[in-house]
Amino acid sequence: MQRTYVKDLKNKIGEQVSIKGFVHAIRDQGGIKFLIIRDVTGLIQAVVLKSEKAVFDFVKELTLESVIEIEGLVKDQKNAPNGFEILALTINLLSKSEAQLPIPVVTEKSGEETDQTIRFDYRWIDLRKPEKLAIFKAWTEFEKGIRKYFDNNNYLQIYTPSFMSTSSESGAEVFEVKYFDRKAYLAQSPQFYKQMAMAAGFEKIFVWGPVYRAEPSYTTRHVTEFTGLDFEISYIESHHDIMSEMERMLIAGFTQLKASGIAVEIPFTPFPQMTLKEVKEKIKHLGIKNEKDYDINAEEERELGRIVKEETGHDFVFVIDWPIQARPFYHMRHGKNMELTKSFDLVYKGLEIVTGAQREHRSEILEKQAVDKGMDLEAVKEYISFFKYGCPPHGGVGIGPARIIMKMLDLPSIKEAIFLPRDVKRLTP
Amino acid sequence: MQRTYVKDLKNKIGEQVSIKGFVHAIRDQGGIKFLIIRDVTGLIQAVVLKSEKAVFDFVKELTLESVIEIEGLVKDQKNAPNGFEILALTINLLSKSEAQLPIPVVTEKSGEETDQTIRFDYRWIDLRKPEKLAIFKAWTEFEKGIRKYFDNNNYLQIYTPSFMSTSSESGAEVFEVKYFDRKAYLAQSPQFYKQMAMAAGFEKIFVWGPVYRAEPSYTTRHVTEFTGLDFEISYIESHHDIMSEMERMLIAGFTQLKASGIAVEIPFTPFPQMTLKEVKEKIKHLGIKNEKDYDINAEEERELGRIVKEETGHDFVFVIDWPIQARPFYHMRHGKNMELTKSFDLVYKGLEIVTGAQREHRSEILEKQAVDKGMDLEAVKEYISFFKYGCPPHGGVGIGPARIIMKMLDLPSIKEAIFLPRDVKRLTP
Repeated sequence: MQRTYVKDLKNKIGEQVSIKGFVHAIRDQGGIKFLIIRDVTGLIQAVVLKSEKAVFDFVKELTLESVIEIEGLVKDQKNAPNGFEILALTINLLSKSEAQLPIPVVTEKSGEETDQTIRFDYRWIDLRKPEKLAIFKAWTEFEKGIRKYFDNNNYLQIYTPSFMSTSSESGAEVFEVKYFDRKAYLAQSPQFYKQMAMAAGFEKIFVWGPVYRAEPSYTTRHVTEFTGLDFEISYIESHHDIMSEMERMLIAGFTQLKASGIAVEIPFTPFPQMTLKEVKEKIKHLGIKNEKDYDINAEEERELGRIVKEETGHDFVFVIDWPIQARPFYHMRHGKNMELTKSFDLVYKGLEIVTGAQREHRSEILEKQAVDKGMDLEAVKEYISFFKYGCPPHGGVGIGPARIIMKMLDLPSIKEAIFLPRDVKRLTP
Repeated sequence: MQRTYVKDLKNKIGEQVSIKGFVHAIRDQGGIKFLIIRDVTGLIQAVVLKSEKAVFDFVKELTLESVIEIEGLVKDQKNAPNGFEILALTINLLSKSEAQLPIPVVTEKSGEETDQTIRFDYRWIDLRKPEKLAIFKAWTEFEKGIRKYFDNNNYLQIYTPSFMSTSSESGAEVFEVKYFDRKAYLAQSPQFYKQMAMAAGFEKIFVWGPVYRAEPSYTTRHVTEFTGLDFEISYIESHHDIMSEMERMLIAGFTQLKASGIAVEIPFTPFPQMTLKEVKEKIKHLGIKNEKDYDINAEEERELGRIVKEETGHDFVFVIDWPIQARPFYHMRHGKNMELTKSFDLVYKGLEIVTGAQREHRSEILEKQAVDKGMDLEAVKEYISFFKYGCPPHGGVGIGPARIIMKMLDLPSIKEAIFLPRDVKRLTP
């Protein structure tokens, strides 16, 4: 018999069906037993009567989280959680679980979840909870929406390499790999590769792929490996073109989420914008300590998010006009004020989720800016050579999708938005 | 003025337009100069008359591969390559190229391309050739089609980590990473992670992401880092369900390619199938040397592809019924013949592009099969634990998309299908 998903049972009342899933719960009421079965689409109650002896005896031995197939009759039952249930006629065991589960799948009555470390040790069981599965459904839909935007706007997709011969831009916090008889390094960002695509005339590209950060961070928003989303586009007038593109892309993601039935609000446009100077002014009265007057820290971001939400009702805010001290040498400078860069951050619910900029595409100015930053020209020579044989003006962004999902779903840590998170201490499972 | 893409100029005859692109060619005929301009959509001839003095003088200094903006009039011109051209009225320099290009963008008259090593040293210039760009347009469309299939069939997308605490399945040919105060290894495949998703009840998932192979190979079909496409699905009856899914997924990719205007033939279904034994029988007369009677080598694959094409007209062939010696311990065995696994390879134009199988999901049988293979149970204990708390029957595939693109477009090497290839010798640019 063809399998029916739990979500489709409501259309099958009075019919005989086959369902497959995990045994989420077992309740025993003497002459009657209730099973809650969980598949990827939801939960359903199955009832097992003593009169169905073979099935009834089988359920006596059944362990929680075993995987079974039930054939039975879908019946109206106003006391059942869904308003209907399945009367089990045959049960087939597909996989038996050990009786003792290392962590519970059903959240404790206390409402308190098992400690994160233990949960992550058994991540494949932790992820069985419907509310965890929902995180990855949200990611799938969000990415689908963003990709629709790219597809409808002539983007090319590229995959960029992880292996680099030298440690990339910052030089610090890069993982080293034993690469045959020499060393390689893992890319911290596809930044330079994306720019090569612009120099190659690809015009509009996007990249979804891993980036690696050897930061010994123990915060709720850092991991050593995460999926980055980057796009880069040519023939822009300024970073404001990138910001508009960023807005449209996010709207496409939220629209798809909403269309798929996930309860999100689509942010209105244009998103609020503030210069870094205005941000500093706005939060000055809070007395947050930050010795850098050209940058904002995590606490300042949080307060900025709170204030913008109060004042405008918006969850997003672009911070623009970043001083050159806060930005890498390849960010283009304002023509009118050479101390400022044509760059931005996008803050979502008080967390930076995007950094973007127009890049400097003129090799002689790039050289000058590298020298200004006190960099060794020899070290950036190869990078600068990408711009010596013609390159359109261009810019782009680096986005942290897991941070967006974390904030969107109000998760306590970015690790909850990652299938198998990796941090300083964690390399398993 | 709003920019017009070259491909859209045919609808603008008689109108004034702005185009942007690289200077692909310059021809000088005394009182008249011709430029060929290249953007991401195509090539167009621009004509510069001596009477337009400012523009004419500017073009005298213009270097090949500089990036310019031209405003001008689109005019019918039956002698022009497209049947029309642009009469340049103003030209604006966006980026000047050095006069001496390290490699030519226009393929030499001899038809011979610059040596691959030199081309790859200047990959961002190599990729300017329209025929190279076309490779990445094809990849983008192919992936788009495959993703449509996943989207329409309730798949979840997951990203799996690269960092592992131990060297994965084979143990050999794994890259080692300095990971804070210990060692990590780069995943050779998302295989175990995908299976964890099945144990978590995700039911149908796909993964696009990098895999790393520390093989010192110098062939046209090996690289040290490539993008893998993997899917895994639950509640299958056998590997034949996976093979059907594989067919449908590929058809979706080819259909999208064709719809986007790329000249490909959509393969017909069902794809031919042969057991490994039948393959060996079929190519026996060729006398290809292979000491393994339970496996086929690259030459045998090539001949198999040729013969299947001749006999059936099909570019694809599934090879099934692989002996256990050729397969890892976690492939499920045939009930009827325990010496054979429920696994397959898919060969496309004589090259293996996919390996798939039903996995063994019963922990006690997995343990037995690991012992049979002479493995240390301690080393696979963590893996086997994924199956101890309930896991649906499942299977899936690992696909090499770059191999598919290589064969589809008849490229001489897999490296041509990769934006920035990495091999034993190459870590740049």
